[in-house]
Amino acid sequence: MTEQNTMQQPAKCTNGVNVTALFETIDAVKNDAGLADFQFRAENRWIDGGHNRSTIQGFYGCRQENQSRSKPFEFDADEPPVLLGEDTGANPVEYLLHALAACLTTTLVYHAAARDIRIGAIHSSLEGDLDLRGFLGLSDDVRKGYHDIRVRMRVKSDASAATLTELAKFSPVYDVVSNSLPVQVSVDTY
Amino acid sequence: MTEQNTMQQPAKCTNGVNVTALFETIDAVKNDAGLADFQFRAENRWIDGGHNRSTIQGFYGCRQENQSRSKPFEFDADEPPVLLGEDTGANPVEYLLHALAACLTTTLVYHAAARDIRIGAIHSSLEGDLDLRGFLGLSDDVRKGYHDIRVRMRVKSDASAATLTELAKFSPVYDVVSNSLPVQVSVDTY
Repeated sequence: MTEQNTMQQPAKCTNGVNVTALFETIDAVKNDAGLADFQFRAENRWIDGGHNRSTIQGFYGCRQENQSRSKPFEFDADEPPVLLGEDTGANPVEYLLHALAACLTTTLVYHAAARDIRIGAIHSSLEGDLDLRGFLGLSDDVRKGYHDIRVRMRVKSDASAATLTELAKFSPVYDVVSNSLPVQVSVDTY
Repeated sequence: MTEQNTMQQPAKCTNGVNVTALFETIDAVKNDAGLADFQFRAENRWIDGGHNRSTIQGFYGCRQENQSRSKPFEFDADEPPVLLGEDTGANPVEYLLHALAACLTTTLVYHAAARDIRIGAIHSSLEGDLDLRGFLGLSDDVRKGYHDIRVRMRVKSDASAATLTELAKFSPVYDVVSNSLPVQVSVDTY
């Protein structure tokens, strides 16, 4: 933010997003693409059976290691009893739906703010269909993950549904789920 | 579980997984593929700016609505200040890494248990690289989501790294992220 902005103009805020800072970020990235390189991270430890825990804290962005979080976020994943777990947390494919819902929502809110489109409320319902035969290795014709995901978003706004859909689809998690992304998995034993 | 099993054989447990029940599940699905149809769900409400909250509770599986959870799991997503949020929760792309880590771990543990491979510990580190220019709409050549994800798993086990990698890749979230999956997004306004 320039000194002039600080002195003379209060930040413009739309949908709870600091639009002044958003446009400053866009301008900064236009001048230096390296500022846009981010790396997010998660650490996970197995506890027992279907129960494991992730910790999420540091990340890299804007050409520096970000250490603003004084403590990590922690999330327990488990399976319900019908899938042989003890239900101490949502299961991994449920967390995937949460990531997708959260990302579509935030993306819609930010992109709407940048276009001065006011959002009054968003409520999303997600359903993911999964045929367990893929995971169990019982059929090569059945994929292991979801074969369908449906997202219904109800949005309080004067903008058209078509415009809002277009904005939501800037979502990074939507991109990752709806397009392929080679994931490198390396295992070391000890 | 049959009455005979209940009377005569204690359930076999490997890596904290009830292997007796696991093989009973596999046999049941072999006889009735419809038992393998699962539907998982998430509901999400926008709160403000980059902050929103998902609730996860019911799901469908084994030919019935599962109502075993007396209350929902709740997860807050937000963005750190550098991404114009207030950091009240991990951000959506971080939750995606958690979902992937948790799923690879659980999958490895379950498939190892089915093969009588003992697992002593698993620790995973995930990194996801993202170029913010895609999200910001500054370049059509830059994808909006991660362009690379790396997973390093350290596993305490006598099995080979190659075998363990093969087992982990039965993961449903790994499948969804590494292969494309068309996601239907519908928006209704009011």
